[in-house]
Parts: sequence; C-alpha cells; structure tokens
Amino acid sequence: MADKKTMIVFSGDMDKVMASFIIANGAAAMGSEVTMFFTFWGLNALRKAKKIKIKKDFMESMFGWMMPRGSEKLGLSKMNFCGMGASMMKSIMKKKNVNSLPELIESAQLMGVKMIACTMSMDVMGIREEELIDGIEFAGVATYLGESDEANVNLFI
Amino acid sequence: MADKKTMIVFSGDMDKVMASFIIANGAAAMGSEVTMFFTFWGLNALRKAKKIKIKKDFMESMFGWMMPRGSEKLGLSKMNFCGMGASMMKSIMKKKNVNSLPELIESAQLMGVKMIACTMSMDVMGIREEELIDGIEFAGVATYLGESDEANVNLFI
Amino acid sequence: MADKKTMIVFSGDMDKVMASFIIANGAAAMGSEVTMFFTFWGLNALRKAKKIKIKKDFMESMFGWMMPRGSEKLGLSKMNFCGMGASMMKSIMKKKNVNSLPELIESAQLMGVKMIACTMSMDVMGIREEELIDGIEFAGVATYLGESDEANVNLFI
Repeated sequence: MADKKTMIVFSGDMDKVMASFIIANGAAAMGSEVTMFFTFWGLNALRKAKKIKIKKDFMESMFGWMMPRGSEKLGLSKMNFCGMGASMMKSIMKKKNVNSLPELIESAQLMGVKMIACTMSMDVMGIREEELIDGIEFAGVATYLGESDEANVNLFI
Repeated sequence: MADKKTMIVFSGDMDKVMASFIIANGAAAMGSEVTMFFTFWGLNALRKAKKIKIKKDFMESMFGWMMPRGSEKLGLSKMNFCGMGASMMKSIMKKKNVNSLPELIESAQLMGVKMIACTMSMDVMGIREEELIDGIEFAGVATYLGESDEANVNLFI
Repeated sequence: MADKKTMIVFSGDMDKVMASFIIANGAAAMGSEVTMFFTFWGLNALRKAKKIKIKKDFMESMFGWMMPRGSEKLGLSKMNFCGMGASMMKSIMKKKNVNSLPELIESAQLMGVKMIACTMSMDVMGIREEELIDGIEFAGVATYLGESDEANVNLFI
C-alpha cells in the first residue's frame, strides 16, 4: 500500500482540473489512497450538467448562472478565447485517445478516489448538495487538514 | 502538538489569499505551527492600506501604483469584472457571516501564524518594510526551505 | 544530504516559472535533490528559442504558433499588458542584479536539478523532444509520483 495523497482543487479551469485527476488516477492505480478537496471555483467541476430547480436568492442565482455547470463546460486557464481553446483541446485529446475530463472523473470514482466538496465555499457560492454529482462527500477545512496529516504528498491546484 | 504546515502565498488574488488564511487559521486552531511565505503578488495582501511616503524610482513607483494596496483591495482570480466580482463576493460573505480577509489576517496574527515577506520580491517590486503591516518577518528562500523541511504539509498558492 | 523536493511546473507564466527555479536552485544549493516535472503550459519554458522544422498537423501547428517559444518569451501571470509587464519586470531584475529566467534554468542544470517533460502533455500539445532544450528527461505521471514519494516537499506551481 503506497502512501496517501491529497489535493485541494481550488481552480475551475479545465486544464488544471484535468491535471488533478490525472495525478489522482495515477496515484490510485499505484495503490495510494487519494482525497480531493474541491473548493471555490473547483466546485464547478462537480456540478451536474442539468439545471436543478432550487430557490436561490438573487446573488446566489447570479453566481450559479455565471459559473460553468459541470466538467464539460470548464474553460482553459490560458488561450480559452471564449471556449474555442477548450473545444480545440478537447478535439485534440479525442484524436490522441486521451481520456476526457468527464471520463477521468468517472475513473476516479470507480477507483475509490475520495472527493469532498467544501461546505463553506458551497454556502458562499450558493451551491446545494443536490446540484453536485453523486458519490461525493461534504466537509470543511478541518477534514482536509486531518486527511493531509495522513498523506505524504499534498498539492494545491 | 500537530505537525507544522507551510504555505507559499504567490498569488495576490483575494480568493486565493483567503483560501490560504482559512487553511492557516484552521491548522493553527488544531495546534499546528504555521508559516506563510509571501512572495510576488502575494506581498500585496500585506501592504498597509495607507500610502506611505517613500522615495522610489520611476519603475518602483509604477509598480506600487498599479498593484493593489492591501487585503481590502485585492481582486478575484476569476470573474472580477474590474472589482465588481470582489465586491459581490465580500457582500455575500458578510451576509453569510464568513470572516472577511482582513479579519482572517488579524486572527492569523493572534493565533501566532508566522508571516514572512520575501525580501527578494520586495526588492524587485520596490516594496519597503514600512509599507507592510506590522508583525511580519523578512527573509529569503533559504528560510522558507528550512521551514518546509520541518513541516508535513507544504502548499504553493 | 537534505531531503528531496519535487515541483510540478504546470504554469507557463514567467513569474511562476521563475519562482519554481528560485526554489529549485535554493534547495539544490542547500544539498537537496530536486525534480521538476513540466506539464501543460510549463512545457513552454523548456522550448528552444529557435524554430525547429518538424511536420505537424494543423492543430499542432496552431498550438505551437500561439504558445511562447522558450523562457525568454513567457508573459507575467498578472499585469502583462501584451508583454510590456514582462519586459518591465526583466529590466527591473537586471538593474537589481537578480538572475534572469534563462540564467536560473542554466544554474539549475549545472547544479543537477532533474528536469522532466511530461510526455502526455507533449503529445496533446504537439511538442517534440527535439523542440525542447537539451539535458531534460521525458516521462509520465507515474515517474512523477515515484519521485514525490521520496520527497518531503512537493509543490504544484
């Protein structure tokens, strides 16, 4: 059994989220326990693609409307050009037989990577549990810190 | 006594600096020693809000004028819209009773989180000791590396 | 002998790449083994300045043409203003006798810092071995994970 790894996924950029899942899946395949803690923009990677009907106040609705809904909708951190860069990257990845982000997330879940959504960020951004994909946990910074104490590699992405 | 944590705060974005202080304060509350090393744009989070009269050359003045002066003035890493995003985030945080960044910094200092400003970055950006908030230390990368060797969690933010 | 350090250099921003080499060189000078793993935009820091003639398909050529060719061409993560910010930063660094990025990379190589280019990213971005500077290695995420298991400080930049 290899040592545990943790990642804070703060970024909601497609390229950075992909990097985090490539590391997570690699580590899990090599026998490591892996915990990913999604916070701030990183939460967008966990949103369901379908709009969920929920009563939100004005600010929460604004945030929910402006932020990308799910891993298919994320943009690149550089050269996104209103989504053209992200589309270009996806088409190249498909051609080169590299797994897409939704496929990477699915693999991570199948391999038992623990995915935690930061409840404080969810509260601030007005994101509710039912808006996020199934199979994830909900917790705060103390849980992250506990996990990181047991790990030998801890990254902030 | 829990194990030590270090963070390099490279970013000067309000959301990333907030994340670093939420982690720092959480770790300190759980009994960890915490060292934060502020470098490049991260130094802006430590600037005093008040303009300090100092003789600077043209380039230093330009940098000083263009960069945000203190934790109240930082923008978001995404959806900032010339500060509108940051204001929106602050008003939501207030409504949800989440501590503001200046409050988080104050708590960190009260709990004994060690804050170090990177002297090389200060030199490059023309920032002087008297322009930064009280209670911080000044050192270089060797000091950071020494601290990180004693820690079990080391993040770059 | 101090403990090993690893860094994933994901960013291709001049300021972030500089920070990674300042840490790498500092750690190497203090006796640590250091491994840097360049992936995604970080690969641009390792590109040769000279255009190498290689047959590429349309998408690969587009990527190659739009991305900065080598450490001299990188922009700042903030206040780049189409390269003006990066030039300003370089001129200040020169005046203050701070090593430039190409000098930092050369020092790193002389001190034996191990630099690995991520082969999966190279494939996606259409970057070939002969387009990158000499003296680097080529490997995937499993190699990075193996290296990080032996290190006590692991950063994602």
